[in-house]
Amino acid sequence: MQAEIITIGDEILIGQIVDSNSAFISKELNKIGVSVYQITSVQDDRDHILAALKTAEDRSSVVIMTGGLGPTKDDITKHTLCHFFDDELIQNDVVLEYIEHLFKKYISTPISDLNRKQALVPSKATVLHNAHGTAPGLWMKKGDTVFVSLPGVPFEMRNLIKNEVLPKIIQEYKRPHIFHKTIMTYGLGESAIAIKIEEWENNLPQFIKLAYLPNLGRVRLRLSAKGISKEEIIVAVEAEVKKLYPLIGDIIYGEEEDESIEHQIAKQLTEKKMTLATAESFTGGKIAQQLTSIPGASSYFKGSVVSYATETKVNLLNVPKEMIEKHSVVSKEVAIAMAKNVRDLLGVDFSVATTGNAGPTKGDSNAEVGTVFIAISTPQHTFAQEFTMGNHRERIVQKSVNKAFELLLKEILNF
Amino acid sequence: MQAEIITIGDEILIGQIVDSNSAFISKELNKIGVSVYQITSVQDDRDHILAALKTAEDRSSVVIMTGGLGPTKDDITKHTLCHFFDDELIQNDVVLEYIEHLFKKYISTPISDLNRKQALVPSKATVLHNAHGTAPGLWMKKGDTVFVSLPGVPFEMRNLIKNEVLPKIIQEYKRPHIFHKTIMTYGLGESAIAIKIEEWENNLPQFIKLAYLPNLGRVRLRLSAKGISKEEIIVAVEAEVKKLYPLIGDIIYGEEEDESIEHQIAKQLTEKKMTLATAESFTGGKIAQQLTSIPGASSYFKGSVVSYATETKVNLLNVPKEMIEKHSVVSKEVAIAMAKNVRDLLGVDFSVATTGNAGPTKGDSNAEVGTVFIAISTPQHTFAQEFTMGNHRERIVQKSVNKAFELLLKEILNF
Repeated sequence: MQAEIITIGDEILIGQIVDSNSAFISKELNKIGVSVYQITSVQDDRDHILAALKTAEDRSSVVIMTGGLGPTKDDITKHTLCHFFDDELIQNDVVLEYIEHLFKKYISTPISDLNRKQALVPSKATVLHNAHGTAPGLWMKKGDTVFVSLPGVPFEMRNLIKNEVLPKIIQEYKRPHIFHKTIMTYGLGESAIAIKIEEWENNLPQFIKLAYLPNLGRVRLRLSAKGISKEEIIVAVEAEVKKLYPLIGDIIYGEEEDESIEHQIAKQLTEKKMTLATAESFTGGKIAQQLTSIPGASSYFKGSVVSYATETKVNLLNVPKEMIEKHSVVSKEVAIAMAKNVRDLLGVDFSVATTGNAGPTKGDSNAEVGTVFIAISTPQHTFAQEFTMGNHRERIVQKSVNKAFELLLKEILNF
Repeated sequence: MQAEIITIGDEILIGQIVDSNSAFISKELNKIGVSVYQITSVQDDRDHILAALKTAEDRSSVVIMTGGLGPTKDDITKHTLCHFFDDELIQNDVVLEYIEHLFKKYISTPISDLNRKQALVPSKATVLHNAHGTAPGLWMKKGDTVFVSLPGVPFEMRNLIKNEVLPKIIQEYKRPHIFHKTIMTYGLGESAIAIKIEEWENNLPQFIKLAYLPNLGRVRLRLSAKGISKEEIIVAVEAEVKKLYPLIGDIIYGEEEDESIEHQIAKQLTEKKMTLATAESFTGGKIAQQLTSIPGASSYFKGSVVSYATETKVNLLNVPKEMIEKHSVVSKEVAIAMAKNVRDLLGVDFSVATTGNAGPTKGDSNAEVGTVFIAISTPQHTFAQEFTMGNHRERIVQKSVNKAFELLLKEILNF
């Protein structure tokens, strides 16, 4: 069964926003066995939207649109749907009541006629309840194809997909099963992995597809299988994954979809009932922020000293001034002192420290842009490593954060 | 002049990655007066790619493809281009030499035949030098339409667009001028703004388009103008922007494209030569991280104490234990103490502190999920405000970070 996605809005085509809605919708549809044939981003223009709808109608059972449902003049999706379905807008009283309720409860500005107009829907549409906003979702059928229109605000759209759209698709359509498994690797490039698993890849069953997804020093291997029997395809994929371990087991760090090294660290520390703190210079709090974005972080993460300025390293982290003068603030010695001292200060089992130069210019030290030191302190030992991370500020920080998590996970696993 | 973008890769259609390349390319093309008609994401499938190329050929002068250029089996863009152009792959010696150079200099694994194969390019293609990777860009002309193929790795793609593709387009095509101006507002909803500026909007010249872009309590107003004379359209847009101030000047905080409140804070503090620190609980370092993602942050940002655990608030920030016991850790009093103490500890002019419950469960306090306190300390005074930020962890954090920046900017501007 095939679906496709049409995202509507000039803001996408001038690059003002990144279309993250499509990835979310695709992932959710795939989970229930609906494959997405194509994603198309079109302008706030009636004829362009109509052309996209017609093309999609001929090949897909479900067409999901997002955007263009707001109260303002540039939002034209509803009028276009009326044209496409030869329909007219009528007021939906349930929607109107809900809009008035939302304004009363949450919104400080008074309700206006523009807001009330959001209760106008095509007469042939089934309304999908938008619990988090004033623009309702719409479900309209033409021949064998369903057209779903959703607001573009990600939070509202996501809730509509999960609570309204997916249940209706599951109820109304028979679907084949799709199963994806992603193997997370680090430390080896795409081609080097490909050589190691060449024979394995050549012998994969026809119904299992392999994709390499490289990103900042990590490669995800994604196996996708499609079939009638859910159990059969899962068993087949798991069997293939098992065969991978003798070939590249040393570089695999996880095999859940979306499993990050941070999630592994969280899991390990929670199980071991051990604690963690960070002392961050050029990473500016990003390690702490990524750790605390995982629910439950408070059980193992105690905090961080973001010592961005040299004086903060001295005053708050007690890094000796003489050490900084002798070795420079971007040095192995300072990284180690930061890691040790934050571990003592916060009374934790493990700590990570970073010091380096992310550019664009040389900072408080003479270190080249891209030179970084990452230190790890454990109950057993403390060490620091030097890395050269290129010359692109954002990438230097993200690559260093990734590397810090890798080093830390290894230590936690070895404990 | 019209372009379109085709992104190639199953990983996009199963939602495993968000296609951020298209937004980047669209923005860059718009800057040089090339409008993007459509963005299409297609599968790693020859016939699907061919169909997309044919559709694009009929309506656009430039078609930019990304993805499918890797060394592994799932990458089929080059073979598909050969089919489309009735061409064959030949070895490009300059590319081969560069690949060998990259491996010698940066990559620890030995070069393989798979890597060498990346030097195979369609014989009719002009090679675009990829300074940061092994897959070259390709520029191929068919009739009046140029087809450009770029690697999907964002960093490599971006450099190719800036250094190779844009200069070639500027050289080879005449383009009309497009001018965008974005007005950043906060504190008022889309409809409320629409009412305030209704008459202004109705009187906009035909060649100026207005779009409302709402996101987490902020609305961006985007004016887009197209015309033959660059000067004329800029003057016209600026004149319309000026008329906005008497109507909604109180909610405008900036008018540069992409201007964030953080950038405003950075600018103001740098000009005033004043300094800043943060004390973060549930925001976990995100305020610090967003501040330090702006180059030059070291001149005003001294650091942060991420006191995620209650004990860290006591030990490192000197928040009195009795105060926490009396008022709970999520309270106005604790927020104020955190702000005051971090300001003293780090010796800065301004500080921000956060304490709250981002969920999913109640933490060290009995505060409801979504209850947060944000405190600001300045050379003049210290205050805290309570907010209710909903029940979605990620949104609670991001909305609070946004709110903290708003409160802080107001204080800095009033100083």
